[in-house]
Amino acid sequence: MKNTFGQSVSVTLFGESHGPEIGAVLDGLAPGIPVDEDFIRHQLTLRRPVGAISTPRAEADEFRIVSGVFEGKTTGTPLCILIPNTNTHSKDYPRGMLRPGHADFTAECKYHGFQDFRGGGHFSGRLTAALVAAGAIAISSLRRGGILIGTHISALAGIPDRAFGDLEADLEQLNDQIFPVLDENAALRMQERIRAAAREGDSVGGILETAVTGLPAGIGEPWFDTVESLLAHALFGIPAVKGVEFGEGFGFAAMTGSRANDGLFVRDGKIAMRTNHNGGINGGITNGMPLLFRCAVKPTPSISKEQESVDPATMQSRTLSAQGRHDPAIVHRARVVVDSVTALVLCDLMALRYGTDFPDVE
Amino acid sequence: MKNTFGQSVSVTLFGESHGPEIGAVLDGLAPGIPVDEDFIRHQLTLRRPVGAISTPRAEADEFRIVSGVFEGKTTGTPLCILIPNTNTHSKDYPRGMLRPGHADFTAECKYHGFQDFRGGGHFSGRLTAALVAAGAIAISSLRRGGILIGTHISALAGIPDRAFGDLEADLEQLNDQIFPVLDENAALRMQERIRAAAREGDSVGGILETAVTGLPAGIGEPWFDTVESLLAHALFGIPAVKGVEFGEGFGFAAMTGSRANDGLFVRDGKIAMRTNHNGGINGGITNGMPLLFRCAVKPTPSISKEQESVDPATMQSRTLSAQGRHDPAIVHRARVVVDSVTALVLCDLMALRYGTDFPDVE
Amino acid sequence: MKNTFGQSVSVTLFGESHGPEIGAVLDGLAPGIPVDEDFIRHQLTLRRPVGAISTPRAEADEFRIVSGVFEGKTTGTPLCILIPNTNTHSKDYPRGMLRPGHADFTAECKYHGFQDFRGGGHFSGRLTAALVAAGAIAISSLRRGGILIGTHISALAGIPDRAFGDLEADLEQLNDQIFPVLDENAALRMQERIRAAAREGDSVGGILETAVTGLPAGIGEPWFDTVESLLAHALFGIPAVKGVEFGEGFGFAAMTGSRANDGLFVRDGKIAMRTNHNGGINGGITNGMPLLFRCAVKPTPSISKEQESVDPATMQSRTLSAQGRHDPAIVHRARVVVDSVTALVLCDLMALRYGTDFPDVE
Amino acid sequence: MKNTFGQSVSVTLFGESHGPEIGAVLDGLAPGIPVDEDFIRHQLTLRRPVGAISTPRAEADEFRIVSGVFEGKTTGTPLCILIPNTNTHSKDYPRGMLRPGHADFTAECKYHGFQDFRGGGHFSGRLTAALVAAGAIAISSLRRGGILIGTHISALAGIPDRAFGDLEADLEQLNDQIFPVLDENAALRMQERIRAAAREGDSVGGILETAVTGLPAGIGEPWFDTVESLLAHALFGIPAVKGVEFGEGFGFAAMTGSRANDGLFVRDGKIAMRTNHNGGINGGITNGMPLLFRCAVKPTPSISKEQESVDPATMQSRTLSAQGRHDPAIVHRARVVVDSVTALVLCDLMALRYGTDFPDVE
Repeated sequence: MKNTFGQSVSVTLFGESHGPEIGAVLDGLAPGIPVDEDFIRHQLTLRRPVGAISTPRAEADEFRIVSGVFEGKTTGTPLCILIPNTNTHSKDYPRGMLRPGHADFTAECKYHGFQDFRGGGHFSGRLTAALVAAGAIAISSLRRGGILIGTHISALAGIPDRAFGDLEADLEQLNDQIFPVLDENAALRMQERIRAAAREGDSVGGILETAVTGLPAGIGEPWFDTVESLLAHALFGIPAVKGVEFGEGFGFAAMTGSRANDGLFVRDGKIAMRTNHNGGINGGITNGMPLLFRCAVKPTPSISKEQESVDPATMQSRTLSAQGRHDPAIVHRARVVVDSVTALVLCDLMALRYGTDFPDVE
Repeated sequence: MKNTFGQSVSVTLFGESHGPEIGAVLDGLAPGIPVDEDFIRHQLTLRRPVGAISTPRAEADEFRIVSGVFEGKTTGTPLCILIPNTNTHSKDYPRGMLRPGHADFTAECKYHGFQDFRGGGHFSGRLTAALVAAGAIAISSLRRGGILIGTHISALAGIPDRAFGDLEADLEQLNDQIFPVLDENAALRMQERIRAAAREGDSVGGILETAVTGLPAGIGEPWFDTVESLLAHALFGIPAVKGVEFGEGFGFAAMTGSRANDGLFVRDGKIAMRTNHNGGINGGITNGMPLLFRCAVKPTPSISKEQESVDPATMQSRTLSAQGRHDPAIVHRARVVVDSVTALVLCDLMALRYGTDFPDVE
Repeated sequence: MKNTFGQSVSVTLFGESHGPEIGAVLDGLAPGIPVDEDFIRHQLTLRRPVGAISTPRAEADEFRIVSGVFEGKTTGTPLCILIPNTNTHSKDYPRGMLRPGHADFTAECKYHGFQDFRGGGHFSGRLTAALVAAGAIAISSLRRGGILIGTHISALAGIPDRAFGDLEADLEQLNDQIFPVLDENAALRMQERIRAAAREGDSVGGILETAVTGLPAGIGEPWFDTVESLLAHALFGIPAVKGVEFGEGFGFAAMTGSRANDGLFVRDGKIAMRTNHNGGINGGITNGMPLLFRCAVKPTPSISKEQESVDPATMQSRTLSAQGRHDPAIVHRARVVVDSVTALVLCDLMALRYGTDFPDVE
Repeated sequence: MKNTFGQSVSVTLFGESHGPEIGAVLDGLAPGIPVDEDFIRHQLTLRRPVGAISTPRAEADEFRIVSGVFEGKTTGTPLCILIPNTNTHSKDYPRGMLRPGHADFTAECKYHGFQDFRGGGHFSGRLTAALVAAGAIAISSLRRGGILIGTHISALAGIPDRAFGDLEADLEQLNDQIFPVLDENAALRMQERIRAAAREGDSVGGILETAVTGLPAGIGEPWFDTVESLLAHALFGIPAVKGVEFGEGFGFAAMTGSRANDGLFVRDGKIAMRTNHNGGINGGITNGMPLLFRCAVKPTPSISKEQESVDPATMQSRTLSAQGRHDPAIVHRARVVVDSVTALVLCDLMALRYGTDFPDVE
């Protein structure tokens, strides 16, 4: 299925960094969900480069929906969103030099040289704009069903944010922040670190931590299609994500079972858990606690510092000092992409569980 | 698709901990692959509990293949492996007490009480025996194609193993070890730590690190079906896996781009990489370097220490001190499960890329 | 996915004609559906050869369910049914002579000679026993949801049955008949025709016509996953089915639009249709009228009359007079297979539409 | 997966009859296939209405490819083709009157009134233009691999064309004909019949017969994913197709096995068949003979003759005399749609069998 993901609700992604348009087809959403174009624009803004901490390539991200919406609401048929590429500088990307850390070499191996190599072509982070636009509709749909998603930078280049506290409040705050950090001081230090990396012609990585509230217990499958499996599948599809962990994640490796288990008790006549070390999932199935997971985002591979590279035309080793416009960090921009693919996976899981009218249409 | 995974090569898993038989259907493997029943037995041995560091529940794991093999070789049609459950003590698992950290509660939510609750039912780690049997054939198939997989415990309860060195030698060594640790002293300390946990009625977790050699460059897809995505999907299907990272993984979060990028150069007329921080994958596609990834394995949730629990029949909070047979650690036993699902995913990727005769039949 | 079919409810088929066991894994059914083993036996009886009009190979069809059922009800986890092959006469099927009309030659091309060639191996109609066993549970599940399926032989060797009349009564009658024909005289003539074919060492084909009542309107998808598409996909997976048509089917080719359209009117405050030329489906979606379709079943290819064949070992043309046990007709036996795959497809469609608790569990 | 079809090569369809654009995403094609825009235009011409035998709605079908093609060749990444809707007369399609034989009522049931009802919305035959554009590239790809597809109207309103003769010559001839009929006199009679239907405000149906040459033996799967299953799945996705049969199809029902079987013999050292009653498929797998199948196409449901209908707003029965632009027959226009989906299915089957570089790139 390649560039398509999802079973009952699915998304198909297409486009190249320097082609005329990129886009996504979102299929299987319930009919009757209001499509708020301002909210899509808001989400695209969260992904857009900002100020000194991002690439100067600024796309207007003027999207248009060419199908699947009628009189302002989803029809239930495939929704195609297109976003033109308006600000392409193809001359910055001459063919041949293989950029370390990028897909240039692997694309060559896979596509035998027929790939559109300009700006990373189909591998470009540019395509995440279409994912974000599609994800915005999924996020709206979940919100109608009482499910809320939010993500912060829990660490950037080793600088930590504070932990999640009051989840509802934290998520609402984050969803309005361009630079999604809960502790203002941490945010300032992180941004300073990004600017320092930019000055050095280098880049930095970080960790994104996501929480989801309002998910019912009993979603997911025991084997293969566990909630962790489906989310990780989608999250590892985001460029630069190289690690995914749920709950304590790698922290479990140094814990004992007596500490790791989430004790059960009865509250208001219902079963609840004392702690949430398992991140809201047991046996691959949601347990009613908030979903909690973290993604490791590697430093942007495009840097202007000199690196070892190869010119495949001549098969000569050469140094490369990447020109063009680069992000000294993409962690903050990747946040809304994480929220978007999370929403797409959860819409799929909800539709599989409750049918294609989820959330119920009045 | 629920309990089925894979596209061109797929596996379907069925069975319950205390049912008569568990099994797997493996479909899409090339015809003509020799099926070595001794090797399947060997792999099952690696999964079986051993001595004081494991549960005393010892299953003979007498498997039988009822389809898909003819005259000792795969036919190319679905191969079903069955493993009887012979040593079930159902009375150890009375209905009702929900074991913390287990799927008991989530199964109740999903299946409305109709699930086979005995010993975790379909959620039981017992089912991994069938995965391992199926995986053994996938491992054989890959080996024919020059692809080798191996995994060690890179850390257990904070005790580290040495890093991978000469990969080919390390992998061959690990594949013969019941307790897969490269440094003998580390192995002894880990086993001592497991025994200590057992004495305390507790359990410990750890990290499994896997390497794969011999994979060609150019396998995988740019979006959604990246190599990371497909492997993570399958790995998170293994009970107790709560984190997956590739290459430097979460370590990337504190690195700069200039360190994280793997420099390219020409060796013997071919493009190679100085380092392998990206774990053999760029842009979701293999780059010809060894695949490297790690799985976080949480401590076994079944412990005999007292824990807070609930009796759903009465909806009363009660303490639970799990009886029955438990593993103070499952990290070492999970190793061969990781190798197995890795092999299944890679067989699928190879078949998608090179067609259904991979590896070529003489 | 090969030998697996279905999205939310799926079935995986395995086994060979002369292997130890055949079976099916049925996944995705709701938890809590009573599993009536007598009904499964009843359905297997409908498939079993009878008297002079069938092959003397009579299997006991002693099935056993090894997973997915607990205390007499589905658990919601994969249900594996196994059926041993007890009555195999492998010597009747020497390697080498390629039987015309069979898969012997195509299996050789696909599997390079590694296939289990005995009795057609994995291609054998024998595997439909497992489909029927799995289908019986799907049929029970639909019946709980008010959906009824039934099939008659609308024609055999040119001898027609009467048309469907009172559907509910006709379906109930058919589901109890070993030889599913509505008009008793037609039944006698058909059976005489089959016996005549048997005497001539030949075989005959026919047409099966199926009706489904109780399906809600609004099931199916507009493109690719139309109800016709999904049913035809599954029906063409039944050996010997070479044609599928819905409603008037090929009869539409000679009709005018004014006759072919089903006029709409209001009855009891609801929209209804005057006629059902479209077989209950418009635009790929159910319209609330009964589903109506027909399958063409070719004559059994195994005949004892002399035929042109090839011995692939010597690459010599030779005549073949098939020995062993053959059916002079399989139309009547294919009936319950058609009902079974129809039920599996409809369970999948209902689960996709209404979620995984369909039909609602009390 | 809904509006997506295919496994290794897939197509996703989107758009509405009166929306701004329709389109398709074609994923999984090999890199390096020349994309001949003139050939796409040629194929679209075959679908376009012509003269007095079609609707006067004439779309320019100005397509544009926004991804997946670079320097005139496929890149191997998703190829999106967009076709603007320029000639929409929405006022001809007031909401409410449910057109008999159309999807108006079923769309209402499925989408609860949120569907774009104008001109059939997403159900409109208009979307086949995108399928044809995508299919043109699949047809080019197969032709590179030596596989040729062609279709004629074997009957229209009971008027038969001559049978296929010299296949290669017939297919080449048909692929250049706007009105694809082998016998010129039959073509004239058919066109006269269409004009007569138009004069009566009525419409006629017909049968399309397709042949495919050059397919290797050994493609397809024994169960569920038989070649018949996959083709029928896709063909029944085409609006108005209500029957599909392979080889003798429904004709098998009145044949004996001795006539139906295709005798095998040795020709030029290879196994061949005397006849092709099975339409190139045995046991679901290609046998090296030409693929042969037929599709029943129902008469266009849009007619100007008065019909019984319902106004759902008032729930009143009313007569409807469809206004707007209609086709008195779509059989000839459906031909290229059949060729297109056939090509898409065969590309998928070839890629699954031989890997993603099929056809080999020089």
